[in-house]
Amino acid sequence: MAHQHETNPAGAELPPVDLRSDTVTRPTEAMYSRMASAPIGDDGLDGDPTVQELEAVAAAALGKDAGLFVPSCTMANLLATLAQSQRSEQIVLESNAHMYTSERGAATFTGQFYLAVAGIAGAMDLNLLENALQSDGHKLKTALVAMETSHNNASGAVLPLDHMQAVHAMASVRGVPVHLDGARLFNAAIALEVAPAQIARHCDTVSLCLSKGLSAPAGAVLAGPRAVIDSSRRLRRMLGGTQRQIGILAAAGLEAVQVMGARLVEDHRRARALSEALNRMHPKVSATIPQTNIVQVDVSLSGRDSAAWSEALERVGLRARPWGRHRLRCVTHRHIDDADIDRAVMAFRAVASGLA
Amino acid sequence: MAHQHETNPAGAELPPVDLRSDTVTRPTEAMYSRMASAPIGDDGLDGDPTVQELEAVAAAALGKDAGLFVPSCTMANLLATLAQSQRSEQIVLESNAHMYTSERGAATFTGQFYLAVAGIAGAMDLNLLENALQSDGHKLKTALVAMETSHNNASGAVLPLDHMQAVHAMASVRGVPVHLDGARLFNAAIALEVAPAQIARHCDTVSLCLSKGLSAPAGAVLAGPRAVIDSSRRLRRMLGGTQRQIGILAAAGLEAVQVMGARLVEDHRRARALSEALNRMHPKVSATIPQTNIVQVDVSLSGRDSAAWSEALERVGLRARPWGRHRLRCVTHRHIDDADIDRAVMAFRAVASGLA
Amino acid sequence: MAHQHETNPAGAELPPVDLRSDTVTRPTEAMYSRMASAPIGDDGLDGDPTVQELEAVAAAALGKDAGLFVPSCTMANLLATLAQSQRSEQIVLESNAHMYTSERGAATFTGQFYLAVAGIAGAMDLNLLENALQSDGHKLKTALVAMETSHNNASGAVLPLDHMQAVHAMASVRGVPVHLDGARLFNAAIALEVAPAQIARHCDTVSLCLSKGLSAPAGAVLAGPRAVIDSSRRLRRMLGGTQRQIGILAAAGLEAVQVMGARLVEDHRRARALSEALNRMHPKVSATIPQTNIVQVDVSLSGRDSAAWSEALERVGLRARPWGRHRLRCVTHRHIDDADIDRAVMAFRAVASGLA
Amino acid sequence: MAHQHETNPAGAELPPVDLRSDTVTRPTEAMYSRMASAPIGDDGLDGDPTVQELEAVAAAALGKDAGLFVPSCTMANLLATLAQSQRSEQIVLESNAHMYTSERGAATFTGQFYLAVAGIAGAMDLNLLENALQSDGHKLKTALVAMETSHNNASGAVLPLDHMQAVHAMASVRGVPVHLDGARLFNAAIALEVAPAQIARHCDTVSLCLSKGLSAPAGAVLAGPRAVIDSSRRLRRMLGGTQRQIGILAAAGLEAVQVMGARLVEDHRRARALSEALNRMHPKVSATIPQTNIVQVDVSLSGRDSAAWSEALERVGLRARPWGRHRLRCVTHRHIDDADIDRAVMAFRAVASGLA
Repeated sequence: MAHQHETNPAGAELPPVDLRSDTVTRPTEAMYSRMASAPIGDDGLDGDPTVQELEAVAAAALGKDAGLFVPSCTMANLLATLAQSQRSEQIVLESNAHMYTSERGAATFTGQFYLAVAGIAGAMDLNLLENALQSDGHKLKTALVAMETSHNNASGAVLPLDHMQAVHAMASVRGVPVHLDGARLFNAAIALEVAPAQIARHCDTVSLCLSKGLSAPAGAVLAGPRAVIDSSRRLRRMLGGTQRQIGILAAAGLEAVQVMGARLVEDHRRARALSEALNRMHPKVSATIPQTNIVQVDVSLSGRDSAAWSEALERVGLRARPWGRHRLRCVTHRHIDDADIDRAVMAFRAVASGLA
Repeated sequence: MAHQHETNPAGAELPPVDLRSDTVTRPTEAMYSRMASAPIGDDGLDGDPTVQELEAVAAAALGKDAGLFVPSCTMANLLATLAQSQRSEQIVLESNAHMYTSERGAATFTGQFYLAVAGIAGAMDLNLLENALQSDGHKLKTALVAMETSHNNASGAVLPLDHMQAVHAMASVRGVPVHLDGARLFNAAIALEVAPAQIARHCDTVSLCLSKGLSAPAGAVLAGPRAVIDSSRRLRRMLGGTQRQIGILAAAGLEAVQVMGARLVEDHRRARALSEALNRMHPKVSATIPQTNIVQVDVSLSGRDSAAWSEALERVGLRARPWGRHRLRCVTHRHIDDADIDRAVMAFRAVASGLA
Repeated sequence: MAHQHETNPAGAELPPVDLRSDTVTRPTEAMYSRMASAPIGDDGLDGDPTVQELEAVAAAALGKDAGLFVPSCTMANLLATLAQSQRSEQIVLESNAHMYTSERGAATFTGQFYLAVAGIAGAMDLNLLENALQSDGHKLKTALVAMETSHNNASGAVLPLDHMQAVHAMASVRGVPVHLDGARLFNAAIALEVAPAQIARHCDTVSLCLSKGLSAPAGAVLAGPRAVIDSSRRLRRMLGGTQRQIGILAAAGLEAVQVMGARLVEDHRRARALSEALNRMHPKVSATIPQTNIVQVDVSLSGRDSAAWSEALERVGLRARPWGRHRLRCVTHRHIDDADIDRAVMAFRAVASGLA
Repeated sequence: MAHQHETNPAGAELPPVDLRSDTVTRPTEAMYSRMASAPIGDDGLDGDPTVQELEAVAAAALGKDAGLFVPSCTMANLLATLAQSQRSEQIVLESNAHMYTSERGAATFTGQFYLAVAGIAGAMDLNLLENALQSDGHKLKTALVAMETSHNNASGAVLPLDHMQAVHAMASVRGVPVHLDGARLFNAAIALEVAPAQIARHCDTVSLCLSKGLSAPAGAVLAGPRAVIDSSRRLRRMLGGTQRQIGILAAAGLEAVQVMGARLVEDHRRARALSEALNRMHPKVSATIPQTNIVQVDVSLSGRDSAAWSEALERVGLRARPWGRHRLRCVTHRHIDDADIDRAVMAFRAVASGLA
């Protein structure tokens, strides 16, 4: 075992600590139970009662008129774009927003030009935004401004509410709607200690992923004004996102929205613990100070790139995802407990001990 | 009760007999059981084992290299189109195909021109198809030919295998792939008394809906050559069709593919019984002779349109869907037993008795 | 020469009689003169005065608020579609309309579904149109109805004004605009002995080709409500249809609109003469009775297909275009005089004399 | 006159000096002459001989297999993109490229994602380009890399040939074609004292505008491999860019390509003269040092924005275009002689004299 411990300080008998993403979370027992007993119907015909309940509950939680249950947050963001834009227009968003960096294939379906505005910690520079929104005969009309909170690529940063309000005001005065990519909106709400609706009031439409920290197996909700949701419902059918007895999944989503938000505080606490331990660990490794559940670990000074780190960490029982060439991303979630954080730190230490 | 019987011959105490669609079928107990115990993973990260099993099982059943689990058959058809076409091309299909009549909004996302070829009982006229496929410098290149079996709008008609072979040959000789909309492929296989793969061999890609007669709550599989499936997997993410622990739904899909096909013979038998009874019932009402589980009831001679019939039937305990102005569609499925067929006939008789 | 005369009855010394299309017409001397002296400006910057004059003159001739000079009638039709449709909508038009049969590649850029309605002599069946326009939650909304007069594929047939009025009324009552593909609108006006505006009043937008019978080298005008033209102007820039000192071409267009319409009566007279001579010529060859300048010659009974006829005619000095497998199209225009009609008939006779 | 001189130092009796753009250039007498006598045909049917000559001459001048005459350089760039990309891919280009800043509406038609790479003087940062080109399962495939020389927004900067070679190599090694937006390619060639083909060898396709400094009234050529040009020709028809007797315009284009390049050296000399004079003029006004015919004048220190400057200059006989809030753009061209440069400087001085 001594040998094993040397090569696998994170515990050879145990499965690896998986910090790659909070998307790996499995449903809770309560979710399985609700899935087994939920009343269902045909959501493509005259409706599924559990879906309708989820849509109502989520819309209320987000302070919006109406909600739409969709297969994924990517589809929610795509529908928000399709339903609120026309040909020959552009979408304005922060240059590291997930919709810009990872969902850009949407251009194939929307035909929109995606205009990135540089930002800090996920918050667009307001002067640049102002400039991007200005219109004349030659510039494309802006159809939609999109924000994201918590902000994945900005290490889970939470947009300040006054920033969101300023963006919303700047767009609204020009008649441009604002969409909020709320893939991890509940994380932001926990961090700000406000209700999700207090955040979502600074946008017109909002997506909420049920499948990350909230632990539902799949699905997301798009919420917003009834007319936009009605359009999105028609577009969802065209995209193939309309499903039949999908109340089964919506049942897990209800548990996610109604019950699972509060426990995110644990993920945030553990992310901070991880960050603090890593920042104490080795001078050539530094970690972001998380507001939510995402820590980025900068290894650029270590002489190894993120891919090499990822492989080395995997060998000692930790899974962390390369995030560009110089960083790893570590995400805490329901399956990570305090001992896992300790194991993760041990794994980092084991790899760091091999540095020159 | 006598009064009730007059107004509701189908049985007032019972819920209405729902022949609107086989999409209303609920999961079986075995499905719920498999959903509760299926191994799951993250299908957007490194895969979900139950999804992978379903994809392999369905591909094998369809005689194809690879499969892809998707939220709906509409998405399967959309992906098959996107993955096998490029800009400035056209899709050729029968003029009553579901992809033409009901999924035409796909044009928004594919930019394809959809060229309808007239047919009989869902089978394209081969001379017209030949003509449509001919190409010169001015005509659009045909990217894809699509067939559908059993054929929804053709009252569940099953394409003859030699017709399918002829279409496939005609397209293949020009290098044009053939897609099969197999929303009800297992119904066709049961009707022809062949394995599904014996049908699917006459196409390059095939979609299979798990949620109609096969009773899964939701989901479909697209199967075909590995390269096409790989492209479809990338496109699925862009559409928002990639989900996380979706093995939960795939578990029901496995039950659908592995177990549920055989019982469709019951649905077909009951559809024939319904058709025969209706054709004996009243000279102004005639029903199609079903090959599978769909009966269309022509009420054009009755002096009332299909909407009026539908409302009248609803009042006496039968739900049937207007199919154009002159027809109703009745679809048998797992929740329809012999007594329900009797009740359906009684309901028709009650409405017919009020005809002039 | 005797030998030559046998093989080339249409006159070996002369260039072939070219009845392939009225698009082959060259500019008149007056056009060259106006092109050389037209005031010009930068139509992509602050405008070109000759373009502005043409747009005003053409809009007035068509009875519309505003006009837009564009490189081709295809672009005019494309812009009319783009400017008057949004995502997930459909265009309804007659099944042999040029926009349907030959400009369908537009789907690549518009993402519209093109729904063909069967017709007679280019006029849509009004019952089918009524049905196509009906909308419910599931059907695509119709963005635009398009007509074409004179109708190319219907052998230059002219739509009756009361048909146009009926179509316009049927669409308008649903708030659907009507576009008129007026590639040969002046031919229709001459045939009906009305002003072009009397035709164009039965549509919202109208395209007019300057380059067919009207003999301008290139260009077309789209006319309609100012808001639609303003949108089309922005879209024209995106398509690359905005040009600089293009008043040079517009000058020829002005001559086309102001002067060239009247002489089309000659083309129509000669088309009738050609048709009559061909119908007298041989029992296995029949010609349509033209309302305008297009004669279709049916050779289906002759034992040779249209391609064989076209080649044989070419060898004896006549160029006519195969129009499907069984027909040839012959179009009269400014470069065809009475002697050319005689030569064309001689050429047909020479080929017909070789029939079994 | 004294009073006039005060208010209009640039000469009140004269038309204003127009430095807004070289697109305002009018055709030369030789162009008019060639337009009047050019042999023409039907470029939408069997070809126009003058168009064919222009396409051959331009392709040769650019060192490419084949050429295509199109209505504008915007359409040339759009066709290059359409012909060399498929769905779900991205276009990579410098963040101030005209195709990015001013032709972005193309996204409507291409559905491409446009990825901007920051650069200096129009030359992309090669490390950023390398990163943008890297591909994995999740990133969009890059369909095309585009460069621009001379570079409009970079004040007419000319890309160094070794930069172009490096970009081409970096893209080619990944199988990605390179397009060159050569709206002002001949200006770059004059500045580098090389033949245009020496520049165009560092790309696969290249557009050339005939209507800026080269003075043709309209039109551009796209040149490249024959297969790409063949595709572009089909796509041109779909866009409505195919015209009939357009040899008339091509005749002017031939004069532009064959004759007009050499005189650009005069425009460049005058642009330098303008720049030098402005830089000597006033400490709060500075001008870029032009490599070609574009000078940007920075007025950010002057206390007035570019719109105010533009209006004030217009009042004293000079037209210059605001280029963002802090700069004016001045472009020399064939209609600007040495005296006009003097008048332009006087106009600037008159406005500057009013500065605090």
